[in-house]
Amino acid sequence: MRLLIKNVILENKKIDILVEKGKISKIGKNLNLKANEKIDAKGEKAVIPGLINCHSHGAMILFRGIAEDLPLKEWLEKKIWPREAKLTEDDVYWGTKLAILEMIKSGITTFNEMYWFEEAQFAAIKEMGIRAFLGLVILDFLPMGSKEKVEKLAQKLKRNLPPTIQFTIAPHAIYTVSKENLIWAKNFAKKHKLLIHMHLAETENEVKDCLKKYKMRPVEFLEKIGFLNKNCIFAHCIWLSDREIEILEKRSCHLVYNPTSNMKLVSGIFPWKKIKKRKLNVCLGTDGPASNNSLNLFLEMKIGALLQKIENKDPTIISAKEIFQMATKNGAKALRIEAGQIKVGKLADLVLIDLNKIEAFPNYDLISNLVYSDLKSCISEVICDGKILMRDGKIENEKEIIKRAKKRFLDDESFGN
Amino acid sequence: MRLLIKNVILENKKIDILVEKGKISKIGKNLNLKANEKIDAKGEKAVIPGLINCHSHGAMILFRGIAEDLPLKEWLEKKIWPREAKLTEDDVYWGTKLAILEMIKSGITTFNEMYWFEEAQFAAIKEMGIRAFLGLVILDFLPMGSKEKVEKLAQKLKRNLPPTIQFTIAPHAIYTVSKENLIWAKNFAKKHKLLIHMHLAETENEVKDCLKKYKMRPVEFLEKIGFLNKNCIFAHCIWLSDREIEILEKRSCHLVYNPTSNMKLVSGIFPWKKIKKRKLNVCLGTDGPASNNSLNLFLEMKIGALLQKIENKDPTIISAKEIFQMATKNGAKALRIEAGQIKVGKLADLVLIDLNKIEAFPNYDLISNLVYSDLKSCISEVICDGKILMRDGKIENEKEIIKRAKKRFLDDESFGN
Repeated sequence: MRLLIKNVILENKKIDILVEKGKISKIGKNLNLKANEKIDAKGEKAVIPGLINCHSHGAMILFRGIAEDLPLKEWLEKKIWPREAKLTEDDVYWGTKLAILEMIKSGITTFNEMYWFEEAQFAAIKEMGIRAFLGLVILDFLPMGSKEKVEKLAQKLKRNLPPTIQFTIAPHAIYTVSKENLIWAKNFAKKHKLLIHMHLAETENEVKDCLKKYKMRPVEFLEKIGFLNKNCIFAHCIWLSDREIEILEKRSCHLVYNPTSNMKLVSGIFPWKKIKKRKLNVCLGTDGPASNNSLNLFLEMKIGALLQKIENKDPTIISAKEIFQMATKNGAKALRIEAGQIKVGKLADLVLIDLNKIEAFPNYDLISNLVYSDLKSCISEVICDGKILMRDGKIENEKEIIKRAKKRFLDDESFGN
Repeated sequence: MRLLIKNVILENKKIDILVEKGKISKIGKNLNLKANEKIDAKGEKAVIPGLINCHSHGAMILFRGIAEDLPLKEWLEKKIWPREAKLTEDDVYWGTKLAILEMIKSGITTFNEMYWFEEAQFAAIKEMGIRAFLGLVILDFLPMGSKEKVEKLAQKLKRNLPPTIQFTIAPHAIYTVSKENLIWAKNFAKKHKLLIHMHLAETENEVKDCLKKYKMRPVEFLEKIGFLNKNCIFAHCIWLSDREIEILEKRSCHLVYNPTSNMKLVSGIFPWKKIKKRKLNVCLGTDGPASNNSLNLFLEMKIGALLQKIENKDPTIISAKEIFQMATKNGAKALRIEAGQIKVGKLADLVLIDLNKIEAFPNYDLISNLVYSDLKSCISEVICDGKILMRDGKIENEKEIIKRAKKRFLDDESFGN
């Protein structure tokens, strides 16, 4: 399987890209090679690395718009949890498919996912062809969050794992998973060489409860039980003391900034000013579409940069380039994949941007436009693992998926208000 | 000229809308009437009022991406002003056209504009068919900002004013316009029944300088010179004391919230918490695309709501409905037009939202989706003054405009870095 992308703009130069076996095998001028598939960008499209969404709960798309402008406790207890309790495997299958559809349309080629009914998610991800890290969730108070489930699933699913899907172990958070289970998860991850995906220090209450329960702050507690290492990807990381930031740096953990969700649920503000001084890898995430409500990393880059500027009263505190790297290179680093950059040997996870659209005009600085100018509408092609997932703005089966999902959910009273 | 919109969703009901002479003349079920133009929404599209952008400098789209992540002073003095000094009438004509293209694609049907070379803007607006309030700019230090120019232009342009264009008088700000000229502007506005469009209390420095120069805060100064009344539309309004908010309320002034620009340039945060307790009309604006960098009120709604939530540590401080009204009904009130709502007798400024797109799924609450779910990509039709400006996502001459603009500016070194 060879894909040849002709006349595409990379760093202001018109070049060709050859993709073989899911990887970029050649970059150069006038590559006239045989290929099974060809895209001619005619010098009118730029190529960027596919975006990497490092924290999401895709199937929560089913709850988008159900509960807005509410305090977190009410949002969770009155709106989200009662509905989540009724979710079926098939609901999650459809929810995941729909979320992936929206992510592909937003130029996302990899996502780091955490939700339950993992088998249903697995099926949806496989069908859609996107790259994903599927969290096997550990959650003490749910039978579907047990260690036994994780062991069984890891065994079962690894047998037909496509190159685009990997597992992570995903203990939900320190307040929903016991110390024993956290230690078990850490050991399981080590044994199977898995990444760990977890919520951390999202709310002030999490810190308070941790201080009460363990007489330590969350990161100190995790350090104490030997949980922390370079395989840990922590979402949110808002309520961190200087000491905790130091520990996370020392242990080479990866942090995920989720600006929209943090603002909408009033969780707090990611302490970028302190973190940028450290050698800490920061990635970007959308969080779930019930608390965002989009799955659009272009927006996340814009909102994430704006929030840090105003919060720190400093327009220079974060640059377009820095936040673009969070959404690409840094995500790839956290997930240990050869992506997030366009170089020979890297994964062919690529997005083509139509420079003839008004949002991309003028094009003095593509990175600046990507971050601040709402370029989602300029995405024309999305390629993942060398396969074309979107072409000319269209995804195969897109209409069919939405049509079937509408039919599936419209008659189901349990989803409505 | 009659336009019939069939099978469109309005407040969860499928209805038809008849448009005559630029106005909504009938709303009902199964209107089978003759019409020159027809749109069949097939029960798959919702109709919303066209969005109203209450503060913009459209032609600054030419500077989009030229200067990012800089302090305001450097941004203005090193990047923007030297380029603005070289702008020609023809540049502004093209810049305005391009800005309108982007606004239409974002569902904006009316904008309140402030920039110079008003005749060039006038031509561009007229050609594009959008509704606009064109500010005749007063600026002491520019010859093109003189009273004489304003008088001459008002005379000249009013002769062939289409129903979609009105003038405002636009003194730039209290720090760029003398007391005498402000008084002149107020009287000119009164005499010709014009609205006044002005920047106010955008930065802390504006207040400091005003205190130094006039021994009063900006709003107190304007009150003292008898400037304030219900015809005033003030952009930004960030640095207001309680006393100033009281005065603005007493004088029934209109305020424009510009969240993205305020965050990007670190101007400050609009004091919504204090203002919402008052009977003050608050509208929404994008500001110019050099400091936003989009002309997308959907984003402005989302970012504007998120910012108030996190700033006030209260997710209930602003609702989706409140911010949607800022972008529609409140804007119409400030601009004294019968728009921003879908009712018989109102202007036919309408936007159709394709509910079959993923971003609009599920559709539990359309207002919530409009504000939080990035629905720009779902806009299929934009109608202004009863005329279809965008159909099936396409604007007539769209490609041609961008092609010509690219040719026009690409060879011009003065625009590049």
